[in-house]
Amino acid sequence: MSVGRLVLVRHGESEWNAKNLFSGWVDVDLNDKGRAEATRAGELLREHGIAPDLAHTSVLRRAIRTAEITLHGVGRHWIPVRRSWRLNERHYGALQGKNKKETLAEFGEEQFMIWRRSYDTPPPPIADDAEYSQAGDPRYAALPPELMPRTECLKDVLERFLPYWYDAIVPDLRTGATVLVAAHGNSLRALVKHLDQISDEDIAALNIPTGIPLAYELDDQLRKVKSEYLDPEAAAAGAAAVANQGR
Amino acid sequence: MSVGRLVLVRHGESEWNAKNLFSGWVDVDLNDKGRAEATRAGELLREHGIAPDLAHTSVLRRAIRTAEITLHGVGRHWIPVRRSWRLNERHYGALQGKNKKETLAEFGEEQFMIWRRSYDTPPPPIADDAEYSQAGDPRYAALPPELMPRTECLKDVLERFLPYWYDAIVPDLRTGATVLVAAHGNSLRALVKHLDQISDEDIAALNIPTGIPLAYELDDQLRKVKSEYLDPEAAAAGAAAVANQGR
Repeated sequence: MSVGRLVLVRHGESEWNAKNLFSGWVDVDLNDKGRAEATRAGELLREHGIAPDLAHTSVLRRAIRTAEITLHGVGRHWIPVRRSWRLNERHYGALQGKNKKETLAEFGEEQFMIWRRSYDTPPPPIADDAEYSQAGDPRYAALPPELMPRTECLKDVLERFLPYWYDAIVPDLRTGATVLVAAHGNSLRALVKHLDQISDEDIAALNIPTGIPLAYELDDQLRKVKSEYLDPEAAAAGAAAVANQGR
Repeated sequence: MSVGRLVLVRHGESEWNAKNLFSGWVDVDLNDKGRAEATRAGELLREHGIAPDLAHTSVLRRAIRTAEITLHGVGRHWIPVRRSWRLNERHYGALQGKNKKETLAEFGEEQFMIWRRSYDTPPPPIADDAEYSQAGDPRYAALPPELMPRTECLKDVLERFLPYWYDAIVPDLRTGATVLVAAHGNSLRALVKHLDQISDEDIAALNIPTGIPLAYELDDQLRKVKSEYLDPEAAAAGAAAVANQGR
């Protein structure tokens, strides 16, 4: 059974990335640097002759914008695009809108790293009446309340992402199509954990750089045969920058 | 049976509109003025409290870009969007890429107006090896050859558009949703002809302005109860400008 090519791209710098704030489900836009990163992602696809047939994004503007710019750049603006909240960034709970450096100073290194990188410990939940809560956001109006997160750990992200992987992305790959997924640091970490069969412990050390397409060759069981960043040098530098956030 | 609201928007000025060239299926982008028009369309939707639940576009960049900018502007960038070649502009045949003023001078007023506004007389077909042919364009690769136009009159556009209207847009409206259709002068003229039950003769005089949302209230039979441009004064001026193209 043939399996298509999977290409992941993490959105570029957002207005809140630049301010070092936890974004989570807050719908911030890309800034100029983020748009330039998305433009570069499109150029990299073009240089490597990779033409997506289908695309999937989260329902957050920074991933949607990244997909739009990337697809316009590679001349595939006309392909079908589907969006799902299941591709959203991790919900950062009560940390949403808070400064990463201040959070580190206030709560200390140990607690900060647990919130950022623990596999199964979520931050405190956000209150529905908090400034950066998504309660009442029309894009989640059809979501049953038991599915609507108020905080998430990476394990939660993996569990809510996998149904979309199996039911929406895998069927596209089974047609042999080249599939672009434009999403977020943690929804993509969840996917990479699954594809690469990374342990709950080892996933903490995995950082995905922004704006550099990561192309997967998959086997019949939809697991990694190999994967490569389309610009490996920039990817290594970008991953190191992500690891040092908050410092 | 409830019927949702339908909102049409014609893409704003493209690079070729500004040069007065026939575009048809050639995939030209919006220029700065066109982007500003799309931004204004989003503002008009916001001012009128119209929030699309679903959107449909052609597979041409200028309509896709218009939908993107409009939806980002009204904060509905996250809604489902579907695209179809059936919403494309009229295929202008051998006129694609030609200057409208030069075409008018070369062929005369009568022939020019037949090509622009005759209901059932298409321009000469474009050759597959012509510079602005879409033969070999990957976005139409799955289209059976008998569906792939080499020229179209408005009657042809109506006939190839209606299946998409009935099978894709009407079911959305039947859910009660607000549906945005971002398309082109002639695919929207075809739709308005259908909704308003305009005769083959009278449709020649209908010009749709760019970038100004046209909101429809429809009856149970999906015909017009009433329609209004969200900025009527600008719409009147815009329609007059369209009527005078080539002059």
